[in-house]
Amino acid sequence: MGSARKTTTFDGRFRMHRAGFLESPTLAYETWGALNEARDNAILIFTGLSPSAHVASCAEDPTPGWWEEMVGSEKPIDSDRYFVICVNSLGSCFGSTGPASVDPLTGEPYRLNFPVLTLEDIAESAWHVVQHLGVDKLHTVVGCSMGGMTGLAFCVRHPDSVRQFISVSSATRALPFSIAVRSLQREMIRSDPKWMKGHYEVGDPPIMGQRLARKLGMISYRSAEEWVQRFGRERSTDHARIEDQFVAEFAVESYLENVAQKFTGSFDPNCYLYLSHASDLFDLAEYGGSLDCGFRRLQLERALVIGVTTDILFPIDQQRELAQGFSINCRDTELAELDCIRGHDSFLVDMDAFRPVIWNFLEK
Amino acid sequence: MGSARKTTTFDGRFRMHRAGFLESPTLAYETWGALNEARDNAILIFTGLSPSAHVASCAEDPTPGWWEEMVGSEKPIDSDRYFVICVNSLGSCFGSTGPASVDPLTGEPYRLNFPVLTLEDIAESAWHVVQHLGVDKLHTVVGCSMGGMTGLAFCVRHPDSVRQFISVSSATRALPFSIAVRSLQREMIRSDPKWMKGHYEVGDPPIMGQRLARKLGMISYRSAEEWVQRFGRERSTDHARIEDQFVAEFAVESYLENVAQKFTGSFDPNCYLYLSHASDLFDLAEYGGSLDCGFRRLQLERALVIGVTTDILFPIDQQRELAQGFSINCRDTELAELDCIRGHDSFLVDMDAFRPVIWNFLEK
Repeated sequence: MGSARKTTTFDGRFRMHRAGFLESPTLAYETWGALNEARDNAILIFTGLSPSAHVASCAEDPTPGWWEEMVGSEKPIDSDRYFVICVNSLGSCFGSTGPASVDPLTGEPYRLNFPVLTLEDIAESAWHVVQHLGVDKLHTVVGCSMGGMTGLAFCVRHPDSVRQFISVSSATRALPFSIAVRSLQREMIRSDPKWMKGHYEVGDPPIMGQRLARKLGMISYRSAEEWVQRFGRERSTDHARIEDQFVAEFAVESYLENVAQKFTGSFDPNCYLYLSHASDLFDLAEYGGSLDCGFRRLQLERALVIGVTTDILFPIDQQRELAQGFSINCRDTELAELDCIRGHDSFLVDMDAFRPVIWNFLEK
Repeated sequence: MGSARKTTTFDGRFRMHRAGFLESPTLAYETWGALNEARDNAILIFTGLSPSAHVASCAEDPTPGWWEEMVGSEKPIDSDRYFVICVNSLGSCFGSTGPASVDPLTGEPYRLNFPVLTLEDIAESAWHVVQHLGVDKLHTVVGCSMGGMTGLAFCVRHPDSVRQFISVSSATRALPFSIAVRSLQREMIRSDPKWMKGHYEVGDPPIMGQRLARKLGMISYRSAEEWVQRFGRERSTDHARIEDQFVAEFAVESYLENVAQKFTGSFDPNCYLYLSHASDLFDLAEYGGSLDCGFRRLQLERALVIGVTTDILFPIDQQRELAQGFSINCRDTELAELDCIRGHDSFLVDMDAFRPVIWNFLEK
């Protein structure tokens, strides 16, 4: 299978927002469509915590992307019209420099020597990629989940360089419930003896902690209502697997086990810790001392906020707060409150609800 | 400090609801007030998963109980009027026989050889205590959280022996969200290498797994709204404890850590696994094939259902389902939907809201 991944290197020291620097970090990205002559048709997508830059399939890599139905020819984010860019977040493990990468100054993997990561760092590294691609002003920035906060960081730091912003199931900053969930996920990984303070062996990562963290993730990404409809009190059919009375009596338990097993091999545990922590740290109110001050720094022509009523991780009140905030400096702000049942994950799985909202916004 | 704990032994084999038996189990309980001559003033309280039978202080044990403000002289459950009984749940570790107890047939602790525990077993063991105390008919059964389901099991199996029922933040059966949360808590304990398939050393229990499980418990017992008001994005003051960047940056993280440290020493991990699993297993619909059939077996004179709008573990819809169900056979059913902010735990901490509801019901 081919890869559509491209990379660029930041020459020299990339100064981190909190402290420290990375020496000549690599940034991985993918693009769809072409930049027009006026160079005014670029759309930049910021991902959630775990996806790669592979948003959608393309000729070089026909495997479906994580937002396959949203991006491509004749899709809502139409690659026939727009030059679409997605950067693998700095700190992740799909091509961009992160805790699993080798520090060129030491020849060893960074692991916990990677400096504290913030969403500002991810935003600034994406700005480097955007400039590398010859774009000075973005038609639209789109950010999903954690990526919505990264997008906010981008917009507040480069207000002249973004015309439109689409925030998908995101927030101005994390509230304590979400911080508690993510903090506990990190503790699950850090408590696994195989984590070894970040020095796990490449072939023997803290799978147990990752599995627990992924299950808690799924509990927070979905909704109680969905599971009533989907599982109710249905029993598990995986009885062959039952070791003792405490394993997977109910269908919902088997479902979580299957989801967790798929994820744990694919994501570096230290990268996960850094990105999760970065999600907690971001706060738009740090720009000027209050959310209002932060919002006043934005110079958007149009903004769209999409959220889901059953989302417990980025709840609907936070979507209303975003829309209210954008409207301070941007009259043309739309809020779409979707009644999807699949909670925070709806933007990845309930495409019939999300496609038309983004389509209509970009068509106008 | 004295103890008010009394015990009684079930003579012979106590047959478990699913399979197996316990040889002459011990049942621990406490009582307040006195049985009247007519023997019609007894109130039986079923606890949630973790409390002991020490509901309230008394002369022999002046330490505050887990429902101190609810039970006692001139309190809503008034020990001047009622003979109040609380049994430590079978399977628990505060005096009643449980997985941490020694099996008289082997001389060894039961551990995972304890038979599968159900709420029916807890209900039947309480029935034994009630009869031992000379009570044939209970004035009122009160059940909180898991104890509400135990109370339902009691009422459906002894319909002639209960006049009134008070269900506090409980349900007819667990829904998949709650099952998922509890299943993950059990997996956290079982994943701790120190659990050793239930054979941990008494002085070296799986503290790490218990700590994680308790934190997830608190996330499910409280509400996102409460934490916004209480913590917001306040930083932790426990900086001295910080080992690395991933430990307790925010106040909500320190709070969870403090709560978890208090709990982990006090509850036996295997007992926790059994009681948690029992909470998942109970289903009123098993009595006759549907919830309706189950409710039709009850012969209550009066019923009170109390629930809290911010409860995510026993959500308000389940309170409405209970009230609807009781009303099939019991015209005098009341539903109190309380707007408390502290989620499932409100019945333990928001006494100003709960006291008058129970007071008024028992006064009538």
